[in-house]
Amino acid sequence: MTEITETPPTDTITAPTPTPLPIQDALHEALDQADEERLNALLATAHPADIAHLLSTLPAKQRTALWHAESLVQSEVLAYVDDSIRAELIEDMPAEEVAAATEQMDTDDAVDLLQDLPEERVEEVLQAMDELRRLRLTQILSYDEDTAGGLMNTDTLTVRLDLRLSTVLRYLRRHEKLPEKTEALLVVDMENRYQGMLFLTDLITQDPDLKVREVMSQTVEAIPAQISTREVARIFEHRDLLTAPVVDENGVLLGRITVDDVLDVIRSEAEHALMSHAGLDEEDDMFAPILTTSRNRAVWLGINLVTAFLAAWVIGLFEATLQQVVALAVLMPIVASMGGIAGSQTLTVVIRGIALDKVNNKNAPWLLRKEVAVGILNGLLWAVVVAGIAIVWFNDYLLGLIIGAAVTINLFFAAFSGMLVPLLLKRLSIDPALAGGVILTTVTDVVGFASFLGLATAFLLPAA
Amino acid sequence: MTEITETPPTDTITAPTPTPLPIQDALHEALDQADEERLNALLATAHPADIAHLLSTLPAKQRTALWHAESLVQSEVLAYVDDSIRAELIEDMPAEEVAAATEQMDTDDAVDLLQDLPEERVEEVLQAMDELRRLRLTQILSYDEDTAGGLMNTDTLTVRLDLRLSTVLRYLRRHEKLPEKTEALLVVDMENRYQGMLFLTDLITQDPDLKVREVMSQTVEAIPAQISTREVARIFEHRDLLTAPVVDENGVLLGRITVDDVLDVIRSEAEHALMSHAGLDEEDDMFAPILTTSRNRAVWLGINLVTAFLAAWVIGLFEATLQQVVALAVLMPIVASMGGIAGSQTLTVVIRGIALDKVNNKNAPWLLRKEVAVGILNGLLWAVVVAGIAIVWFNDYLLGLIIGAAVTINLFFAAFSGMLVPLLLKRLSIDPALAGGVILTTVTDVVGFASFLGLATAFLLPAA
Repeated sequence: MTEITETPPTDTITAPTPTPLPIQDALHEALDQADEERLNALLATAHPADIAHLLSTLPAKQRTALWHAESLVQSEVLAYVDDSIRAELIEDMPAEEVAAATEQMDTDDAVDLLQDLPEERVEEVLQAMDELRRLRLTQILSYDEDTAGGLMNTDTLTVRLDLRLSTVLRYLRRHEKLPEKTEALLVVDMENRYQGMLFLTDLITQDPDLKVREVMSQTVEAIPAQISTREVARIFEHRDLLTAPVVDENGVLLGRITVDDVLDVIRSEAEHALMSHAGLDEEDDMFAPILTTSRNRAVWLGINLVTAFLAAWVIGLFEATLQQVVALAVLMPIVASMGGIAGSQTLTVVIRGIALDKVNNKNAPWLLRKEVAVGILNGLLWAVVVAGIAIVWFNDYLLGLIIGAAVTINLFFAAFSGMLVPLLLKRLSIDPALAGGVILTTVTDVVGFASFLGLATAFLLPAA
Repeated sequence: MTEITETPPTDTITAPTPTPLPIQDALHEALDQADEERLNALLATAHPADIAHLLSTLPAKQRTALWHAESLVQSEVLAYVDDSIRAELIEDMPAEEVAAATEQMDTDDAVDLLQDLPEERVEEVLQAMDELRRLRLTQILSYDEDTAGGLMNTDTLTVRLDLRLSTVLRYLRRHEKLPEKTEALLVVDMENRYQGMLFLTDLITQDPDLKVREVMSQTVEAIPAQISTREVARIFEHRDLLTAPVVDENGVLLGRITVDDVLDVIRSEAEHALMSHAGLDEEDDMFAPILTTSRNRAVWLGINLVTAFLAAWVIGLFEATLQQVVALAVLMPIVASMGGIAGSQTLTVVIRGIALDKVNNKNAPWLLRKEVAVGILNGLLWAVVVAGIAIVWFNDYLLGLIIGAAVTINLFFAAFSGMLVPLLLKRLSIDPALAGGVILTTVTDVVGFASFLGLATAFLLPAA
């Protein structure tokens, strides 16, 4: 019997569902009852990650109470805290404590935290650190937050090409502790240029007399420091990477990016796409005070109000027509609404396609034709239904014909602008996820009201 | 000078942006020109991941041409192909080739692929594999796709507690190749129950005479096989994990989950949230044929048409009023639209809060009060603006007062339902991301039109 075995396949088991994080409920209760003794007892045993999560689900008053609880170790919890509330929490923490808190973090996470501080405090905190750490953080700080350089870790172990594995192993053994999340050492030449990766699995299993250059893997290409985090995420996703080296324009190794950092990028990209639809910032704290939230949301309502008044103005152009045929007022929201829905389908697909690099110059013309064809097909389908209902409801064939035509026209324009608006916005470097919806709604409202009321004015009114 | 060094911090560099994936453009061109020779030459040098990405950006005809190109190695490319098009591609692939393709994949990815096949073909493909592989895949197949069991890899290396590190190292050296993405060995007791993780970094740096139990880390808790992938993703995110063991209800080790699998979960969760807003399925292929896409989207348009007709019916109730005051028809979309926007802000925040486990029984009442307060505040603010414009436009103070009141009422209801609708849907196990928007729009349309036209009927019409 070997003592080391590969996991044997076993039979299936159905098991009871586990209770999720009961410690958080207990903490919440202790807070509600202002039971300090119990709170401190619980905090002493809770995982810092759970405490951090609880912090992000509390209104300001309780959040402050928990954050300043006696047995909460701020420097431990801080490493796990949400971006959305971190700035608030570290506002009045002494520089030494912030520095201490960053010591346990990866360098890139430490930098994220520093970026939440006002500039003069960053300097203060950096001064409270040891020399090497300060140099490393300063290097990352010099890159834009949204680039590979800003995302990388600088605590990387490197080895030279011509070492034997046995030498590498001996050297590593002298290290007290290797950086966390190390699956490979990065191989560099004499000028510190990236050459390949030496996976720990290979280091362990290969003949110790072999040289690094014989064992290293060259499958992972280096990532230039200045590319965007979005591109980094695409590379990790496409290539299924866990670690990738980051280099400058001369191929000199600067650091490494690990997949857990990419996870944060993907999460925040996704949040951004979702939240900006409603004009929200993904870093907003949902438990912020009422006035803060009201102010953040008011702007978006104001922008949409302009759109709404534009639509109202278009309707106003046809006041005389509406006065004569009141059924038009009853039916007109249907035309606008169908256009809005169809347009947002195209818009959503295209914005996502752009984000995932699936839309390019080559296939955009084909996609446009396809989306317009889909718009016309669905326009015709639902035109028949809407027309039928309108005819039965108002007993007026011509009215049915007119609303059917208006629905088809609006769905055509909806598909057209659902496709072109995001492409255009992207070219203008305006975020399509934020502005796309508003512009599209404006188009479908204006076209919807204008085509329906316009056709009605032309064909429905008795020739005056 | 040590030959093994830690990366030194260097100065900042600004470098030119790299050209992204030019190979894909070249391939695209060769396809467009039906230049088979060039296509095959390019395919021979391209990374399978790039070919897979290109496949997902082509219309059906070109996709088939590329997929069946002579020098495309289907079994290599398949490992990187998008879920949305995989089923289509493997439809007519022989069982042996599918089996060969899965050999290079992680066990969990192989299972994903099998799940795209019709049931009778799964058996066929399994039979074409070797015994151990088949047993492993069958084990994962027995778990639901959306559970930790369905997500795990079963090719895990385990070690026993009482071994010395030197023995472990000796054993590993006998292995030709360790499983990819191994950062740690999983430690089990005699009954194969999970005990902790032995990180390769520790295995390399610690004294070889130490025992596994003295060196292993117990910071990572085991994940029960039956919890949902959504919960798995939360655990990985909260705890910043790279690898976690999966166990059955007796604590027996079944396999491991790595963070790259979690990345896929987060990506598809995010896509789902985004796409279902527009009634779309995140696995839909944006390059699918026109008729397929039209059919997929038609249903959503139909559902929204019901909502639109409901709103129209409400307006129809006030036909007599509209006949007398045509300005109401002009202004009424503004009331509905402002409610829709404000409601979708609350809805988006709450749906996201639910997804991230930030909304619970404890804080829901506080959140409801907050959202309603925000709704009323913004309602009052924009009521003043809308009323002002309406008064100037139509020179009618009472009309201004009425639309202001209607806006406030609608924003109140919008906040109220934006908060309660998703919570209610979640309790009914209906996906809030899919159904929430439609229900909310119905509320804000109906309340908007009814309050505005109702108030106008009561106060604006001359007493008949």
